[in-house]
Amino acid sequence: MRVLLVGAGGVGSAVVRIAARRDFLDHMVVADYDPARAEAAVAAVGDAEGRDARFSAVRIDAADREAVRQVLVDERCDVLLNATDPRFVMPLFHAAGDAGVTYLDMAMSLSVPHQAQPHEMCGTKLGDEQFAHAEEWERAGRLALVGMGVEPGLSDVFARYAADHLFDTIDEIGVRDGADLTVDGYDFAPSFSIWTTIEECLNPPVVWDAERGWHTTAPFSEPEVFDFPEGIGPVECVNVEHEEVLLIPRWITARRVTFKYGLGQDFIDKLRTLHALGLDSTRPVTVPSDRGPALVSPRDVVAAVLPDPAGLGDRMHGKTCAGTWVTGSKGGRPREVYLYHVVDNDWSMREYGTQAVVWQTAVNPVVALELLAAGTWSGAGVLGPEAFDPRPFLGLLTDYGSPWAIREQGRGQEPIGKA
Amino acid sequence: MRVLLVGAGGVGSAVVRIAARRDFLDHMVVADYDPARAEAAVAAVGDAEGRDARFSAVRIDAADREAVRQVLVDERCDVLLNATDPRFVMPLFHAAGDAGVTYLDMAMSLSVPHQAQPHEMCGTKLGDEQFAHAEEWERAGRLALVGMGVEPGLSDVFARYAADHLFDTIDEIGVRDGADLTVDGYDFAPSFSIWTTIEECLNPPVVWDAERGWHTTAPFSEPEVFDFPEGIGPVECVNVEHEEVLLIPRWITARRVTFKYGLGQDFIDKLRTLHALGLDSTRPVTVPSDRGPALVSPRDVVAAVLPDPAGLGDRMHGKTCAGTWVTGSKGGRPREVYLYHVVDNDWSMREYGTQAVVWQTAVNPVVALELLAAGTWSGAGVLGPEAFDPRPFLGLLTDYGSPWAIREQGRGQEPIGKA
Repeated sequence: MRVLLVGAGGVGSAVVRIAARRDFLDHMVVADYDPARAEAAVAAVGDAEGRDARFSAVRIDAADREAVRQVLVDERCDVLLNATDPRFVMPLFHAAGDAGVTYLDMAMSLSVPHQAQPHEMCGTKLGDEQFAHAEEWERAGRLALVGMGVEPGLSDVFARYAADHLFDTIDEIGVRDGADLTVDGYDFAPSFSIWTTIEECLNPPVVWDAERGWHTTAPFSEPEVFDFPEGIGPVECVNVEHEEVLLIPRWITARRVTFKYGLGQDFIDKLRTLHALGLDSTRPVTVPSDRGPALVSPRDVVAAVLPDPAGLGDRMHGKTCAGTWVTGSKGGRPREVYLYHVVDNDWSMREYGTQAVVWQTAVNPVVALELLAAGTWSGAGVLGPEAFDPRPFLGLLTDYGSPWAIREQGRGQEPIGKA
Repeated sequence: MRVLLVGAGGVGSAVVRIAARRDFLDHMVVADYDPARAEAAVAAVGDAEGRDARFSAVRIDAADREAVRQVLVDERCDVLLNATDPRFVMPLFHAAGDAGVTYLDMAMSLSVPHQAQPHEMCGTKLGDEQFAHAEEWERAGRLALVGMGVEPGLSDVFARYAADHLFDTIDEIGVRDGADLTVDGYDFAPSFSIWTTIEECLNPPVVWDAERGWHTTAPFSEPEVFDFPEGIGPVECVNVEHEEVLLIPRWITARRVTFKYGLGQDFIDKLRTLHALGLDSTRPVTVPSDRGPALVSPRDVVAAVLPDPAGLGDRMHGKTCAGTWVTGSKGGRPREVYLYHVVDNDWSMREYGTQAVVWQTAVNPVVALELLAAGTWSGAGVLGPEAFDPRPFLGLLTDYGSPWAIREQGRGQEPIGKA
């Protein structure tokens, strides 16, 4: 398999490190707007003798559909793996379509709030732009595997596993994400891209239920305290706009699908302030610069003043947990489980030199690539992770040294064993 | 008198409007980095027949000392009035010195926190850079009248009036600033330059007392609720770095001098968040722009996303109060007074088309210019407003249609009449 990886930021660089330890890859072209980042990601793998010849670096402008198509053709790639921020989903998705290759991403095309009732109704939903092309992709027999990170991604695989193996009927599927990470020397240091975090958290959260279908609420709605496993403990979670809510109901029958993020009150307050001041905006404003008056996006400035989360791993401590909480019934009796995956930052730093949140995002598309390379997973159209058999994915994730677990909630909330 | 006014922002434009109604001015050259702003300030005055010929507009770079000196010479100015933000104090102060003209400003040269103990000791204090040149100015027989806005400015005049006429001995002089302004359609809209507000509020506040001299505290220290007059009511005030604390003790004997600003908890929280995120910083960061990667100051971006306070007057409601609270004794009995000046936004908008906070800042340097033109005030050196006789100033302020008042605090906190 020959892969074009677009984006050599934190997640892209971790994809390279993880993929380098597996055999399925013939070649991976690592592409970034900043050629130094692409070079650094490639230079980080390989033995003492030199680089791993399976990896090479190129400069690319992810917004330039035709240029990306040309690289895919020149490099004879089978797959484009998108590890950029969600602004570049559509040009990369189309470039893969143009070149006739498989497309994977970890976040979907952006939403646009409903004009009149943003906190009640959906406008353009996450992924709508991509799903609008589903028939084309299906007719052409090509696969776009969308939302294939950890959340969305592994969380959707968990949902499918629960539906296939743990439940007869499902009431609610609630993705729940929480962590106890701290960063030495920083009062405030987000552990994931602040650009994406702002996008997720300040857009109206989307909820799905069988009666109303998809609808929205006000940001930070329906707070609940969720007790995360493996010592993380209780964290305040709120509704956040996330792809799982748009993906899961397309393939799995449930009465309700939600996503809640364990942001904590301090983080919520800071995001609210950024929003109140207009600093979350991507609409450019004119400011003085060393190049004269320049148009800049306030959100890019917020990202620039905060430390790069990918570079904070050696100051971070704690664990991050991604998981899917499912309620329903099995064999006529009520059941409640939380399927989850925890990464300890000390472990991911020691093993891969990559911080926990970034590593947890990056491992899942590599597992998916390996399943596609082997032909274990295959399909055509625009498909979410829950469209595939979850068992080989979960098995391979454990083979990667990062097992998942099930907590049977009815039994005192203890994990019943690693899978 | 011929004046070079540098800065045609909110305060500069209001200076033009106020000065245009008085006779003392022979000519005022209105200068700004943006020639359109200078033109607009000049175009706003004059009768139906055309412009007021006493005003003209030029472009100027306030950071370019030599260029400013040249304009002062070419235009045969007697005075430079600085209405820019405090970054430009030193080049303008020196340009006036070079040209041998009188210098006025409304904010003084910037402070630098103490390296090791920023919340206990002063580093470079507000105005230190200017006072370092006091002897030169004095020897040359030239006047730099510094801190001649409302606070510092009128507040210092009040302090001098209290010392001369209301007290035998003074315990504390506490400048207290509060407002009940709201802005229709905005959750958050500062009523004064956010650049300056951040500078004032996030620097360690300075306090003076007879034992320790000048020293600092942590930002937002010593909160107190002060009951402001004329219906504004109680507002939470905290210590803020301000020029009065540096100026008053140089000319007036008191046991303690403080400045507290009625920020309110919401505003304090927002400033704390800006600081926690590093968005208050003036240290440039690299961000994408329409001109390619550009170096911009995060604080400039904060200012650019917020509405321009000078343009909000027609959406604003309420009053702003600046004043000086003095405790001590007179005739062997304890006394406590609050000398204050309130501007109602409806009044300043109706009379001048200028919002209250900006108008209140701008009127005071115009009064001072008129006193200097008449020879009523004169002096040599770097002098604060408290170095002059306060009575003609306070009389003229009332002539401008904007009276001040004294509240005798011992008598149930009622104003005892306009002066």
